[in-house]
Amino acid sequence: MANNKECAVEYIEGGLGKVPGFKYAALECGIRYPDRIDYAVIVSDVMCNAAGVFTTNALAAAPVRLCREKIMYPVKAILVNSTNANACTGRQGYNNARFLTQDIAEKLGVHERSVLMCSTGIIGVQLPEEKMSASHDSLISSLSAQNGELVSKAIMTTDTVPKRRAVSFATSMGSFTLAGTAKGVGMIAPNMATLLAFFVTNAPIDKQALNSIFKQAAAATLNRITIDGDTSTNDSAIILSPVSDAPLESSADLDSFKDALLAVMENLSEQLVRDGEGATKFIRVLVKNAKDDDDAELIARKVSESVLVKTAFFGEDPNWGRVAMAMGNAGAEIREELLSISFGGCTFLERGVPKENSPEKIKEAMSQKDITVTIDCALGDGEALFMTSDLSYEYVKINAEYST
Amino acid sequence: MANNKECAVEYIEGGLGKVPGFKYAALECGIRYPDRIDYAVIVSDVMCNAAGVFTTNALAAAPVRLCREKIMYPVKAILVNSTNANACTGRQGYNNARFLTQDIAEKLGVHERSVLMCSTGIIGVQLPEEKMSASHDSLISSLSAQNGELVSKAIMTTDTVPKRRAVSFATSMGSFTLAGTAKGVGMIAPNMATLLAFFVTNAPIDKQALNSIFKQAAAATLNRITIDGDTSTNDSAIILSPVSDAPLESSADLDSFKDALLAVMENLSEQLVRDGEGATKFIRVLVKNAKDDDDAELIARKVSESVLVKTAFFGEDPNWGRVAMAMGNAGAEIREELLSISFGGCTFLERGVPKENSPEKIKEAMSQKDITVTIDCALGDGEALFMTSDLSYEYVKINAEYST
Repeated sequence: MANNKECAVEYIEGGLGKVPGFKYAALECGIRYPDRIDYAVIVSDVMCNAAGVFTTNALAAAPVRLCREKIMYPVKAILVNSTNANACTGRQGYNNARFLTQDIAEKLGVHERSVLMCSTGIIGVQLPEEKMSASHDSLISSLSAQNGELVSKAIMTTDTVPKRRAVSFATSMGSFTLAGTAKGVGMIAPNMATLLAFFVTNAPIDKQALNSIFKQAAAATLNRITIDGDTSTNDSAIILSPVSDAPLESSADLDSFKDALLAVMENLSEQLVRDGEGATKFIRVLVKNAKDDDDAELIARKVSESVLVKTAFFGEDPNWGRVAMAMGNAGAEIREELLSISFGGCTFLERGVPKENSPEKIKEAMSQKDITVTIDCALGDGEALFMTSDLSYEYVKINAEYST
Repeated sequence: MANNKECAVEYIEGGLGKVPGFKYAALECGIRYPDRIDYAVIVSDVMCNAAGVFTTNALAAAPVRLCREKIMYPVKAILVNSTNANACTGRQGYNNARFLTQDIAEKLGVHERSVLMCSTGIIGVQLPEEKMSASHDSLISSLSAQNGELVSKAIMTTDTVPKRRAVSFATSMGSFTLAGTAKGVGMIAPNMATLLAFFVTNAPIDKQALNSIFKQAAAATLNRITIDGDTSTNDSAIILSPVSDAPLESSADLDSFKDALLAVMENLSEQLVRDGEGATKFIRVLVKNAKDDDDAELIARKVSESVLVKTAFFGEDPNWGRVAMAMGNAGAEIREELLSISFGGCTFLERGVPKENSPEKIKEAMSQKDITVTIDCALGDGEALFMTSDLSYEYVKINAEYST
């Protein structure tokens, strides 16, 4: 994927704040809990082209529906809140989201369609829209290029750490920067989009190219992680790039931008899985030589989502049969006599024949915190890499007590 | 479903042993562990018509493949072992299953195709076929009509109790009995079949009718439970009915048989979910007024399988938004403004509008051990009922330590 040398993408310290042309603000609004940064805004100095991918959940939250209506227009700002998803809140929920974006738009002097909104948190509770709009003056007055880190914090729910990444990349028009932030870390099985993730760049990219590259990059990264197989009502990933008369156009420059975006998305995806609710292990599922890429993805997803696979890894139980069981349910072409399964340096199944491994070798394999499950179908050249976590007591604890 | 009064089906105490014409044997063979009844055989006095439904998993175990080849022929016996699934065991695994059934067939004086085999347990380990065949004389010599309960015990894996049910039912040719036994209780998301389940009846049913009724009944019962959303490599449900020159033929008699089968299957399905690994709650998911029955089933299945829904119930957290989230991922038609969600006597969403419930009422609702989640789509007349369990620490514990 993002090979720093080849594509001239370089990681730089920091997050959103590293991209010139954007300002941020966040505060403790008390949307659901006191003493918690829960409301933020991202504002661009100039109007931006925006691209987004959103949840495939049929009960998409009000802010998702609002984003879908507005994202084709030039965007000036994104309003974000945590602790309340504004999902299953009916007409009132939609009106609340619209009212809040209208109010910010008015204060920024732009059309209401130029302000997007994203929400995350409890489903089925109305936003305290008066309290939120009452904080808008404070939000606007505290806008600063230095506040990017506050946005990363404001969007956290059960995340234990804020997630951010920034890169610089070279083009024929000089060097640009791109940065992103994301929140997880449960209800994660992105489909078309994931969770909340925001990206900003000072590289001017034509709207159509931005849309196409953003969707491809999300499909290859954010859509290839899973924590619990449940796709939320609020998944939204959005990028902002300044509108310009002279956007990057050459395919080399666009490739450079795409590499930069992939580098940031891939890194954030990994951060999300590592911070997965209750996760004690980081698991890569690499499917090789499947019939085609689609089959590889089906298999990798099914193995990554299997509760039985995930509990086995938590227990450090070398129960590779569960990997086989899960892939057998993927709906992909599999031939048992060709199939090989290995992880942690142990081969458990080799072209359909179970292999012995010494207890010491198995113990060493299973005690690894980072483990790659490699599945070789020996059928074609399809390949897919997913990232997932194990399923622990702590996951159950977090999710047994979420709303109360 | 099975209304005892209307269809003249009556539950009777006991299990397989209540059906005249069948004998059973089981013993401690030491297939994987000592001191555990792990090997059993069901033998009919006469040749039987058999019907079966088997896993849709692409890596179907060797005994499943063997059953598929043999089940169209008259069947005399079913050999069953627990603790070893004989799945992902390649050519050797298939040959072992074939060898064991051949040996039993020879001892019973029938063609090898008249003996089926089912296995459950660890994946990817070869059966100790010599030790198993060495026990065949003991198995055969201990056959008795009184040993039905031993079969129910021999097939248990993480089940905490044996599961059995028997009924009598009236027909124009007199009264018959039908009994079944099943084992669960993890890797449960049956599709076309479930787990291991065996049914015997002394009612003679024509092969074609038996097949059709058995598949319909399994689809309506065994295929509508889910514990962890993983379909095993070994799911097999089989019924035996004596070959006869004068089978039950009238539609009234066949209806009576079907009602009897549904009564047993439905009861065993409920027993399986109640004994689900680590289960502390029994949850019915009733979807009403979906666009059609297919949509209702999609929704009921997705809600029943959602890890987030199941952990919320374990934590007695009234997080109905997760039910909404899960159904939104079902791929079914849903209109948020028409949707109602209630459980435990509390309505949480009513035609798209979230409702308040007093903390006392919610607490009472969530503390129930048996709880029905009712989802009203208000779109059509599609309906489906699923049964599932919550997801507890104990589930994680059981599955973190299964193979070791």
